[in-house]
Order: sequence, then structure tokens, then C-alpha cells
Amino acid sequence: MQTDLYDRVIELARRRGFLWNSFELYGGAAGFYDYGPLGAILKRAVEDLWREFFVLREGFFEIESPTIGIEDVFRASGHLSGFSDPITECIKCNEPFRADHLLEGIVSDADGMSTKELEELIRSHNISCPECSGELGGVYDFNLMFETTIGPGKGRRGYLRPETAQGMFVNFPRLLRFYREKLPFGAVQIGKSYRNEISPRQGVLRLREFTQAEAEIFIDPTDKTEPRFKDVASSELTLYPASIQEAGEEPIQMRLGEAVAEGTIAHESLAYYINLTYEFLTASGIDPKRLRFRQHRDDEMAHYAADCWDAEAYLDRFGWVELVGIADRTDYDLQAHTRVSGMELGVFKEYEKPKRQKVIKIKPKMNYIGPKFKKRAKQVVKTLEKLSLGEISGETITIEVDGEEIRLGSEAFTIETLIEEISGEKIIPHVVEPSFGLDRIIYTILEHSYREETVEDEVRKVMELPEKIAPIKAAVLPLLTKDELITPAKKIETKLKENGIQTTYDDSGTIGRRYRRNDEIGTPYAITIDYTTLEDETVTIRDRTTMKQIRRPIKEIEYLITRLIRREEKFNVL
Amino acid sequence: MQTDLYDRVIELARRRGFLWNSFELYGGAAGFYDYGPLGAILKRAVEDLWREFFVLREGFFEIESPTIGIEDVFRASGHLSGFSDPITECIKCNEPFRADHLLEGIVSDADGMSTKELEELIRSHNISCPECSGELGGVYDFNLMFETTIGPGKGRRGYLRPETAQGMFVNFPRLLRFYREKLPFGAVQIGKSYRNEISPRQGVLRLREFTQAEAEIFIDPTDKTEPRFKDVASSELTLYPASIQEAGEEPIQMRLGEAVAEGTIAHESLAYYINLTYEFLTASGIDPKRLRFRQHRDDEMAHYAADCWDAEAYLDRFGWVELVGIADRTDYDLQAHTRVSGMELGVFKEYEKPKRQKVIKIKPKMNYIGPKFKKRAKQVVKTLEKLSLGEISGETITIEVDGEEIRLGSEAFTIETLIEEISGEKIIPHVVEPSFGLDRIIYTILEHSYREETVEDEVRKVMELPEKIAPIKAAVLPLLTKDELITPAKKIETKLKENGIQTTYDDSGTIGRRYRRNDEIGTPYAITIDYTTLEDETVTIRDRTTMKQIRRPIKEIEYLITRLIRREEKFNVL
Repeated sequence: MQTDLYDRVIELARRRGFLWNSFELYGGAAGFYDYGPLGAILKRAVEDLWREFFVLREGFFEIESPTIGIEDVFRASGHLSGFSDPITECIKCNEPFRADHLLEGIVSDADGMSTKELEELIRSHNISCPECSGELGGVYDFNLMFETTIGPGKGRRGYLRPETAQGMFVNFPRLLRFYREKLPFGAVQIGKSYRNEISPRQGVLRLREFTQAEAEIFIDPTDKTEPRFKDVASSELTLYPASIQEAGEEPIQMRLGEAVAEGTIAHESLAYYINLTYEFLTASGIDPKRLRFRQHRDDEMAHYAADCWDAEAYLDRFGWVELVGIADRTDYDLQAHTRVSGMELGVFKEYEKPKRQKVIKIKPKMNYIGPKFKKRAKQVVKTLEKLSLGEISGETITIEVDGEEIRLGSEAFTIETLIEEISGEKIIPHVVEPSFGLDRIIYTILEHSYREETVEDEVRKVMELPEKIAPIKAAVLPLLTKDELITPAKKIETKLKENGIQTTYDDSGTIGRRYRRNDEIGTPYAITIDYTTLEDETVTIRDRTTMKQIRRPIKEIEYLITRLIRREEKFNVL
Repeated sequence: MQTDLYDRVIELARRRGFLWNSFELYGGAAGFYDYGPLGAILKRAVEDLWREFFVLREGFFEIESPTIGIEDVFRASGHLSGFSDPITECIKCNEPFRADHLLEGIVSDADGMSTKELEELIRSHNISCPECSGELGGVYDFNLMFETTIGPGKGRRGYLRPETAQGMFVNFPRLLRFYREKLPFGAVQIGKSYRNEISPRQGVLRLREFTQAEAEIFIDPTDKTEPRFKDVASSELTLYPASIQEAGEEPIQMRLGEAVAEGTIAHESLAYYINLTYEFLTASGIDPKRLRFRQHRDDEMAHYAADCWDAEAYLDRFGWVELVGIADRTDYDLQAHTRVSGMELGVFKEYEKPKRQKVIKIKPKMNYIGPKFKKRAKQVVKTLEKLSLGEISGETITIEVDGEEIRLGSEAFTIETLIEEISGEKIIPHVVEPSFGLDRIIYTILEHSYREETVEDEVRKVMELPEKIAPIKAAVLPLLTKDELITPAKKIETKLKENGIQTTYDDSGTIGRRYRRNDEIGTPYAITIDYTTLEDETVTIRDRTTMKQIRRPIKEIEYLITRLIRREEKFNVL
């Protein structure tokens, strides 16, 4: 077998209805994939598992905002100016290329370079078009948001969202009210996001349309501890801190408690969500031995982030690939939307006990201002009262009323010192964001679950998916296509389905072939109806992973399968 | 209260986190809505209920295809040329309007008119811009698909899909293989679709981005019976056949069996899915008395459709509104994609017994053709054998080989009549499509569930959502904010959540206010912990609809609530 693991997994995924190239009928389109019948069930199971962790367990609520966004949102978020890749096009054949990719293997740090630097390097290294050897044009930034127009005519510019996160940020005021104005709280979203890749070439790993699951957790910037952190502090993960990367060393095993204590991970809240991510990914079927958490180095971290870790999985063809980013985005997004929208996005935080504070105030003298300014007196008073103390230089103040400058001295005001009680202050929350790329996670689950072994001179392909996310939980197989076996088999199928167990019925081909068919789509249990069934009302149950079989009464089947799937019972061979 | 029902439901939906205007922070954008925390749960519950009907019960598999589509798909589907609304813009203020809407109340049938007819009517009726009274420009067709560009530079034209259905059609060959080449089979999809409305003005009812749930059921065109139809034939629905609409009469109550027998509904398959739609909608909380099935009249039915019925709900402000379309789309889509893609989208249908058929064949005479055409002989033979009988006129045939015309007579071939056994034929399936607009359905559920009543001189607002789709199933309320009541209350909350029951805990405000707060979001059960609880370990359970209360032991609570939600038990007042 000459093909690599990626090819073999994708071949199986295509053949069995997990993943299909989109628009195959019309020659396909790079960067788009369909989930076929089994893929869609798998995807929903992974989404539901994610909800078990982030919605049920954490108590965060899910929202659903549009995939089309208006310009203001992305002006504030920075995507309009900053979400781009450097591009160069061939002058001869017009083929576009990512400028930094053309320099791979030639320079080591093309990733963070300016368009100018890239252009110079392409020229100085005499790089020509990989397709036709033509000359390459200048390097410019190509914005990766898909653009569209809302409404007819010139309409209004719209963009397909590059992340679901902005939906939570622009809804911050409503979410805050929903959570009764108290920190911390979280909101999550699972949905499509888009990235107009210049030339996507990594199959299902680099999609132009993909599904994200993101949680935005709004926390107090002065208190990033997490009460539940103590429950996970002893959890030991593979960490790859920036300092170790820079020293050229290998990732290390480290307890999270230690990582926070020595400042490797910025704070408890971030470490807690790194652990939750680990738990979710391994529960989904990702191999813990091919999973690590890599910290962003200074040169790759977003300028506003306080700390950022990627969950990376090892893939046979692509090496270490990012599946999840877990970042402390600080108050960047809320500040940005405050600036652009003019609406203050903060929380009123009450002090434990009110603070007493000296306040210096300007008190206008009405008996002078009244007669002197007559109709304008009211406005003069208002302007005076609004002044902050810094604006008084020496003993006079100059204020502007109706465009006229007015100079006032001690005849017009006094300065008084008061003691005020302050119950709290407005703060801008910080945001911890675990952001999951579900399509990559699903591919990784398939690759990490896939196993080949030789059984009776044949290659057995088996997808060792966790019971919970396997698309089909049980296969019902009459040993032979005889009515006396088909009838009880169909009855068992119906009973399982009525109990909400995804079941397949299959009576075509040899029993061995049918086992293999179910092995490769990860069906955990196969129930076979044979002639003994007719004698004593028992069936065999075969375990996908071990291929071992047990015999059990029909009447116990739904209960047993349900418990096996929930891992409330172990598959015991008697 | 002067506001209408729509305003009151939307006010509640906004305030309590069901539906939010999108991008409110930036002044909003017409045609876009967010699902807030409670709305998103409700939406998922409705989607899951839909799956219970169309995936679990019908056994159709779900797929997930991209929301961005390539041009070929929509050239084939007809959306590129035909999916448009007539538009006119004001010459003075540039505001765009739907031309047919400007003629509402002036002519009765503007809906189906050509742009030319509309333009003439606007002129002859002296209609000017409703905004600034300026002159209106010409009427033209505006395509309602959002357009974008895939990839950089000129890239490739892409469109946001106007329906999920095309995803199933372009995957037909793969779906057919998945279902082992046998009709009937169905595939479903739940996902976003888009329609770039010219000026959406019906709030949540006319969205530019919306969620569809569509099933495409591929059936044998020569056999549109449905074996399970007998189980639903006696189901009596409110039908509004085209003939009765045209006669100006009111909808009628009719059994489906009768409707099919007398030809009102085209066939059993369509009637079966009309019934399934009815069952789903009423199970979702839509009032059967405000629900009817209206047949498309000839002037509104798509030219390719064999029959089409809309499930319509009555809404206070908008009257009868389409929620679902159930159509027999015939082979229109598969034929269209066959034409444009060049790939034959059919099924091989085996006859019950093979047919014997006379076949007339052209048999080349090799002893003439061989020596005569030498190297080209093989090609001449091939060309001859490919000819159909219709191409032989008289006794000679003219064929073309390598651009040269060759005339052949009886010296070169004989015509033979054979009897062939034919085991089956390629047929193009027809498609029955129930297509659901989920956002409208969700709004309708809210409006139909909403009730106001006066209780103790206060207006009680209650959302009588079915237990299954209510976002919160149980509220846990300590009678007073005292530690001795809070502690057992929190324990009950945790226990319910561990059993997968969406639960809210609320200890702020009077108990009456907390009941009202839960009534208006449709929480079916409120559990109150009081001082009797401390004595005998019982709590009260209050029923949202009747406001009656029962007292039960704490240890039975999860079990009881689970059974009440599943309607396995009735709320009995002892």
C-alpha cells in the first residue's frame, strides 16, 4: 500500500459517506467539503459532546448570530484591516500564490514578514511562477473575508464572518443583562465561519467554509483565578511553552498547578480551559499521545493577547496541526467595539465595601453669574460644573459658551472639597476564549481512530471511534438471508431504534464481509441472529475492537447496548 | 395595551433572550436576527424534534453541504436566471422598492407580472417614491442570491445558497450509492439559506439569512403510492384546494384518504408528508386551529411541480403565512443537473421479470470494410455500430470518420433483428420535498403559545410551550433567600441538571414574581423549597399552565419531572 494515512482515511471517508468533495458533479471546488450521511451524524455527535462540556457542565448559554456581518463589526474587530494573507500573482498566467509559502524552505521566518520584505526576497531569490515559470507580480495583502452586498444597487457592504466570536461581543450588553450584570459569565456559539483562502491545498484541513465552536468567557480583569481550578491542578498534560520552543527543546509533561504557579500558563482561568479542552478532545477520540498544547511565541501571538495556547494534534501527513486556540484576549474586543460603536461595554463592579473618596468640585456663584450672563447664565453654570479639576490653571478658568471664550475668576466660583461614598466602578471584562475548529477535529478523530491489522490474511480496517460518537451504534445481522432469521433480526432492529439507538440492518454478503463493513465505519457492536437464536432466544454480540463475541438473551439487548454505549458496563467475554 | 400581538411577543422575546435584532450595537440591519440564549435552546429543540420525525421515524439520513455554492449549481437549478424580484429605484433618493409591492391595493395580480407590465402600471398610476415623492426609475429583475467571489483576483463566482435542497441534488450519485441504488430514499439537511431581500419589512418573518430544514425524497415516478399512507388516511386536516380558492370559498375539513381518492392531493406520497408536517408542527406547539394546508393555484405553482401545498399558520398581524412547502418537484432538478453537468442522474430499475424486446441492429460486413478502409476499418465499424436505426434513410448510410464523409450501402452492412432480454431500465426519480422555514415556525410557536390572563389584578403572561421544546424545563426556587432553604434548593438544581434536565435557579424577588418570570419563558414546572421541606423532605411543584401545585418528596423529583416532560405522567393535583 503506497498511499499515506491521509489518503487512506480520506478514501474510506469518501467511500462510506463521511466526507465528500463538494460539487463533485461540477468538478469540485477547493476548500469545500460535504459531510455525507455518516459524517453528518459524527459531526453532530461531536457538537453535542462539546455542548456537554461547555453548555451543560460549564453552564454557558449558546447563542446563534448571523454568518453575514456588517462592515462596522469587522472595522471594530480589526478584520477589515488585519485579516489578510500576502499574495502575488503570476504576470503571465495570472495564477495567485501565497507569497510567504513561495519562500518556504528558503527563509525560515517568512510567516511574519511585510509585503515589501516578501517582495524583495522573491526577487532576490529569483522565484518564478511554480505553474508556468512566468514572472511574479508585486506582493499585496489580500483580505480573507468573503465580501458580499446586502440589498440591491450599491446596497450595504457585508462580510461572511471569519469567526463566530464577534457575535458574542456585539451582543455583550444583552448577554450582560441576561446574566443579571454579574461576572464571570460565558456565551458559546457553534456555527459556520469563512476564510477566503488564496489557494487551499490541505484537503479537509484548510477549508474556506468551516464550523467553529467558540466560547467567550467574560471575567474580572483583576481576578483571573478560577475556583474549580483546584480540581484539575494535578492534571498532567504535554505542554510546549514558548521558552522551550525558543531553546529548541522538546515538549514537556507538566502538571497544570505547577504551570500556573511558575508562570508558564498566565493564570488559573486559562489553565482550567486548557484542561477542559484536553478532556473534550480525548473524549472525542483524539489520541492523547498525539496531542500537545503549544504556547504562542511572542512573534506569533496577537498583540492584544495576554497568553495563548494551541491544542495541536499530530497528523501523519501534516505533522503538528492546530485544532483549538485558547487565548486570553484581554479587553481588546470590548474596547474596540466601545470605540467604534460609541457604546460603553463595561460592567459595574460593586466594591465589597463602599470606598470613601475625596472629590473636588467647582461651585458656581449664582449671584455673580446670574446678573452678569442673564440668558446665558444657565449654560455658563452647566459648563462650569462639567469641568474637571485639571482644567483650572491658576485662579482663572476659560470656558467656551456659544463659541465665545469667557474668562472667569474667583468672583464666579469657589472650589470645594467633599467626601463621597463610591459603591463600585465600571470595569471592562477580559475574555478567555477557547476556539475550536470542528472540521479539523473531526478529521483528526478519524485518523487517530483508524487502524489496520491483518486478520486471516486480510487487512481489517477498523475505526475505533468512542461509542458515544460512532455514527452507528449497533449493526443487526441475520447470519443468512432466510426469512426465519430475517424476521427476528428486523424485530431487534426496530426495538433498538425505538430506544434511540442508531442501528443499521444488513443482510447482504457473507457475515465476515458485513463485520468488516461495520468495523470500518466504527460501529461498536454487531448483533448476529443465527439458528441458536431460534432455539433459545439469544443472539451474539461482537465487539468491534477485540472482535470477541458474547451470547445474550434478546430481551436484554436494548438495555445491554445502551449501557455498553454509555460505558456503564464493560464488554465481558464469558 | 395598544400594541398588537406581534409587538408584545417580540418585546418579550427580546427582553428574555429569545430573539435579538442583529448588530443592535451598530444600529441593526434589516433582515437579520440573533437567537439569544433561550431562543437558541428553543431552536435546537425544534430542530431535534424535526429530526425525530424526519430522521429517526422516516429513516432518512442527514447531510451537511456548504452554504456557498458555485455558479454551475445555480445555473442548473434555475436560480441564476429565475430567482429574482422586480425592483425600481427612486431617481432622486436612490431608495430601492419592490415594484410589485408598490402596486398593492392598486392592482390585484401584481405578483406574477413582467417587469414591463409593472413599469407601465407604475407610470399609468403615477406612482412616485414613497420616501421622497421623486420619480421612479425603470423596473428590472434583481437576483436575490447573495453573490461573492471565491479566491483572490477575479476568482470564481460564488453564491450563498437560496435553499439547502441543491446540496442533496448535486450529491445524488453518492447518496444513491449510499442507499445501495434502491428507491425510495430520502436525504435531509438543516442549515442556513439566504435571500437578499430588497427591503425586508416583516421583522423575523422575512429574513435575509434563515434556517431551513428540507427533506428530498427520491421516489419511483411510476409509483407514487406510500405503504404507510393507510395509517394516516383517516387523518382530517384543514385543506384549501386550489379549486375552492378560485371559487372564493373557505377552506374545508377533509380526510387525507378522501383527498387522494378524489384527486385533490396528487398522490399518497405527497399526502403522507402533508400529514407528517401537520404532526410535526402541532407537536412543536403550533395551534391546529390556526393551521391549514393551502394548495398552490396554477398561477403560483412552479412550472415543473406536479402539485404543491403550503402549510400556513394564522398570525395576528400578518394573516396566513407560509411555514412549509410540500411539493412534488418531479424530475426537474435531476434533469436540470444532468443537462448542465453531463452526468446522467438516474437509477437502474430492475423489472420484476426481464422483458424480451425486439432489437434492430446494424451488423457491419467485415470482409468488405476490412480491405476497403484498412487502418480506418476499426473506426468505421465502431461508428456503424453506434448508429441508431433512425439514422438509416433508404438503403445507404452516411457516416463521418476523421472529418471525412463516407457513404455506405448494403455491401458494407446488414440489418438484423434480434430478441434481447432486458432486465430493467434507467429511470429519473421524482422528488417529494417538504421544505420548512424554521425561523417562521419558531416565531409562530411563540405567538401561538403566548397567552395573557389577569390573575390577582395583574396581567400574567404565559408561554404555553410544549414541555419538549420549552428552553428551561424546571425552575428551582427557595421560598426565601435564607441559607437553610438555599442549600437544599441548590442540591435539587444540581441533581436535575445531572439528569440532563435544563434547570434554572432563581432566588431574587418575591416568589410570585419568580413564578411570572418563568411563566413568560414557558418553564413548565417550578419547584419551591419552603420550611415544610426542612421538616419532611418534600417540595411543591407548580404547573405553569394551571398554576396548580402538588407536594412531593425530594427523592422523587428528577424521576417525576422527567416523566412529566415526556408526558408519561399527568400533573395530578392531590
